[in-house]
Amino acid sequence: MDKTQKAFAIGVDLGGTNTVFGIVDAKGNIVAQDSIKTQAYHTAEAFVEAGVERLQPLIAQVGGIEQVAGMGIGAPNANYYSGAIETAPNIAWAHERVVPLARMFSEKLSTLNSQPFPVRLTNDANAAAMGEMAYGVARGMKNFIVITLGTGVGSGIVINGQLVYGHDGFAGELGHVTMVRGKEGRPCGCGRTGCLETYCSATGVARTAREILANTDRPSLLRDKPADQIESLDVSIAAGKGDEVANEIFQFTGKMLGEACADFAAFSSPEAFIFFGGLCKAGDLIMKPIEQSYNQHVMPIFRGKAKFLISGLMNANAAVLGASALALR
Amino acid sequence: MDKTQKAFAIGVDLGGTNTVFGIVDAKGNIVAQDSIKTQAYHTAEAFVEAGVERLQPLIAQVGGIEQVAGMGIGAPNANYYSGAIETAPNIAWAHERVVPLARMFSEKLSTLNSQPFPVRLTNDANAAAMGEMAYGVARGMKNFIVITLGTGVGSGIVINGQLVYGHDGFAGELGHVTMVRGKEGRPCGCGRTGCLETYCSATGVARTAREILANTDRPSLLRDKPADQIESLDVSIAAGKGDEVANEIFQFTGKMLGEACADFAAFSSPEAFIFFGGLCKAGDLIMKPIEQSYNQHVMPIFRGKAKFLISGLMNANAAVLGASALALR
Repeated sequence: MDKTQKAFAIGVDLGGTNTVFGIVDAKGNIVAQDSIKTQAYHTAEAFVEAGVERLQPLIAQVGGIEQVAGMGIGAPNANYYSGAIETAPNIAWAHERVVPLARMFSEKLSTLNSQPFPVRLTNDANAAAMGEMAYGVARGMKNFIVITLGTGVGSGIVINGQLVYGHDGFAGELGHVTMVRGKEGRPCGCGRTGCLETYCSATGVARTAREILANTDRPSLLRDKPADQIESLDVSIAAGKGDEVANEIFQFTGKMLGEACADFAAFSSPEAFIFFGGLCKAGDLIMKPIEQSYNQHVMPIFRGKAKFLISGLMNANAAVLGASALALR
Repeated sequence: MDKTQKAFAIGVDLGGTNTVFGIVDAKGNIVAQDSIKTQAYHTAEAFVEAGVERLQPLIAQVGGIEQVAGMGIGAPNANYYSGAIETAPNIAWAHERVVPLARMFSEKLSTLNSQPFPVRLTNDANAAAMGEMAYGVARGMKNFIVITLGTGVGSGIVINGQLVYGHDGFAGELGHVTMVRGKEGRPCGCGRTGCLETYCSATGVARTAREILANTDRPSLLRDKPADQIESLDVSIAAGKGDEVANEIFQFTGKMLGEACADFAAFSSPEAFIFFGGLCKAGDLIMKPIEQSYNQHVMPIFRGKAKFLISGLMNANAAVLGASALALR
């Protein structure tokens, strides 16, 4: 059967807690879905076996494996080239080892009809970028950057309609460009200091809040909570109520993101920067400061050209959709 | 005649003073060459007419236009997508206007045998990157960045074997990422402050020299010249003689370039950074500080992976070769 006739793709969102399997049709609808606990298995082999077992009834629902073009997996520490999860610290069966997950799933699923079954693997932010291009706000775009603002800051970069993997599969780590050089930079989980992630992740925003509250006496709704329990969501809520300190935190965060995007424009001059993650729920309160800072700091030839967009997949199961788009390439 | 049978390509290096036309064979040998004065013409039309007139005997030498696959032009302020020079401040006939140079040359050259003749245009640094990939140290590479250290700092970025032009044709302005944020940054010709170019161009290196000499009493060979006449070549010569101040200037310049390349790795994880231009003649005196700084500042997953190379085209007519490679794409 011709591949173009296959109407479905499998998208897998492999997280530290749950792994969600979805069957996605050509329009981006998840027509069948199930999940397993990622860490309920001692070995990668047992995890893959359980996953395929759970997938079989879903596949049967859409008419059998012959109807499925392939499978894409979005996972932490995933390398597209090798198809492996490379020493993921938060997954017990992938901790301190390289797990060739794409090959393992492919081999198991190939046995269903004795035909080769393509499986691709990439990291979460790259899967998000694929999802935006296939089903989201980047439809029709060839050059854009997705920036995920979560516990960390991730990125998926598309140039000439292709994801950027670099020579080793590890490109697109824009959360780790250095924004504050020298000793004043905040320490980062990557072992260095001053990374974008330390300022603009959810953790970074909460830290900014604690710093401003500790260094001033200014009144703020954020003082209703013990400082060490403040989360970025609290800042969003307070900013939405017009809290001045909370808005200043977003101004600071947006300024940093805008300056970073100005550097990214000098690199690949994207048509759009697309933001994804909890922080985006603050809408204009965070997006306007980013865009203003960008246009203030970017080279004159780029000024006013780039679009600043919020993900079109925020309310859908974006990670599953994105991963499935990887299979449709 | 099949395009693959055509043995030659025309490369044009269009500079502020001279425009060099070269006919290049498949191995990267310039088999015929001539030049005109770029600014000896009042209009772009007259410039193109003079260029084609000068090209005709060269084309005849290799057996006629039927033997030539196309023409590539490397020029300042050139846009690959539009094929135009867009308001180049240093060229009188392109000042404050958009000159569709690719189309103009194509139309003139098409009349030679009444066949369409492809002409492509790009900026100098992108042409250098094409040249490295076709004939230089990047042969066989799919992901690399060429950084040109001249009066300014330019760049040509190759990802997945393709030059990065961005959505508007202006990508690859790595001389204008911000290295020093805020008021302490040096003023840049682009109208902003703190750009990489203000520290690592030939002009930037000379400025670093003047600053160090003015702020200290340290002895240096560089004091043999009036401070305002020091050029980056003087720093290279003094460093080569073991001058401590000159070597400190290269340490400072290399540190800045290494930190910038660490950010570029987070973006596209290239196999190699290739340096081009006068400053590279200092060899290890500049290249070692760059590589050391890079490995000190880059994310651990990239450490020790990237190659730091000097252009393989330094002694050839690199700009003509690079431009000709554009025609062979």
